[in-house]
Amino acid sequence: MVDIKKKNKLTLMVISGDLDKLFGAFILATSAAASNMEVVMFFTFWGLRALKKNVRTGKSFMGKMMGIMEGGDIDKAVPSKYSFGGAGRWMFKKMMKSKNVASLPELRQMAIEMGVKMYGCQMTMDVMEYPRESLIDEVEDFVGGGFAIQQAQESSIQLFI
Amino acid sequence: MVDIKKKNKLTLMVISGDLDKLFGAFILATSAAASNMEVVMFFTFWGLRALKKNVRTGKSFMGKMMGIMEGGDIDKAVPSKYSFGGAGRWMFKKMMKSKNVASLPELRQMAIEMGVKMYGCQMTMDVMEYPRESLIDEVEDFVGGGFAIQQAQESSIQLFI
Amino acid sequence: MVDIKKKNKLTLMVISGDLDKLFGAFILATSAAASNMEVVMFFTFWGLRALKKNVRTGKSFMGKMMGIMEGGDIDKAVPSKYSFGGAGRWMFKKMMKSKNVASLPELRQMAIEMGVKMYGCQMTMDVMEYPRESLIDEVEDFVGGGFAIQQAQESSIQLFI
Repeated sequence: MVDIKKKNKLTLMVISGDLDKLFGAFILATSAAASNMEVVMFFTFWGLRALKKNVRTGKSFMGKMMGIMEGGDIDKAVPSKYSFGGAGRWMFKKMMKSKNVASLPELRQMAIEMGVKMYGCQMTMDVMEYPRESLIDEVEDFVGGGFAIQQAQESSIQLFI
Repeated sequence: MVDIKKKNKLTLMVISGDLDKLFGAFILATSAAASNMEVVMFFTFWGLRALKKNVRTGKSFMGKMMGIMEGGDIDKAVPSKYSFGGAGRWMFKKMMKSKNVASLPELRQMAIEMGVKMYGCQMTMDVMEYPRESLIDEVEDFVGGGFAIQQAQESSIQLFI
Repeated sequence: MVDIKKKNKLTLMVISGDLDKLFGAFILATSAAASNMEVVMFFTFWGLRALKKNVRTGKSFMGKMMGIMEGGDIDKAVPSKYSFGGAGRWMFKKMMKSKNVASLPELRQMAIEMGVKMYGCQMTMDVMEYPRESLIDEVEDFVGGGFAIQQAQESSIQLFI
């Protein structure tokens, strides 16, 4: 047994790009930031959608296909259930708006303004063929699993979403 | 670095309503309670299925549609794979029963009797238009992301399911 | 408040058998092992795919059906999105290989060689009717929720994947 020193800090590793999971991630991030916690979000695989601009990506044939399939920015995230080819997303956003719930782009902006730090997975960037300029400027850096582990290690809360 | 004080406590944030994920959540909750840990479960989005009664919900047109799509209580949870329009659920429940594995309703009852505290996400209740009486009486309270973060902060184990 | 003693240790509870989730799990496991952390992986439900050999399983009718549906070893894992009846898996593996990213079987081998300890869920083994010999020899033991909680309790990082 050693004495692990923890910061008052939340690390979120976000592998999912679903509307509901991203919602959960940003609600937790902003809630933690509001209670003065340091917050780090690490986005990998489908989670990178949260940081993407609405631009085409991909260089190789398969990269371009992936760019089409995963096309769109955070506003194009679909729910993990009942996506109905887009109708589910429309319905959810409508239901949330009617209850005055902030949208995903608004939540992300709030997180940025509250000082939440966002990192992208370099390996996913390579495999998916996302160029740096296809992601929002606010991304701090592109990193790997070792960085995610190190951040989690010094965080009092770590979650995989 | 600060000295974060932790309780001998498990906080589960449950966003999923799939049979397998709920199974995992309640097995962990009862296992932890059995070893004298304090246990808090926070249910959000699809996870609220774990607390629902088998009643119709929804007021607006979309709320009613959601009420139909997400109809049913914890016993109606379908596996995240091989749902086959209900056949998968039937098959899983049959396979589990034949090996004397407790059902989801039984596991939840066990958790309640062991003192596991269950909370619902207020925002989901609003967006989904679930009235209070559509959930089981044992729900402690309806809360938000700040509550979930605070619980996780004082817990020695925190998981996002 | 008590003083919870933590080891410099990562516990991963892996319920998912998707290519992307398993990838994330093994990247984190090997990254943590590389920075001298003790690493324990607990595989349950679909996650057991990570430990399976490419053999048929099941004794009862339903067990055999499950054995066919969940057939194949770690190399047969499909992505959680765009599986396209196998084409998605092929595409992903191709894209990863072209960027010199290690494959899942390679990552698992690396984890084993780095001393990562792997455990299987006994209950899933029973329900799915997987015999011991259908899993790789390197599995340390078959355990339950209590074991997973105990491991997480002494770990400085715990994640549910």
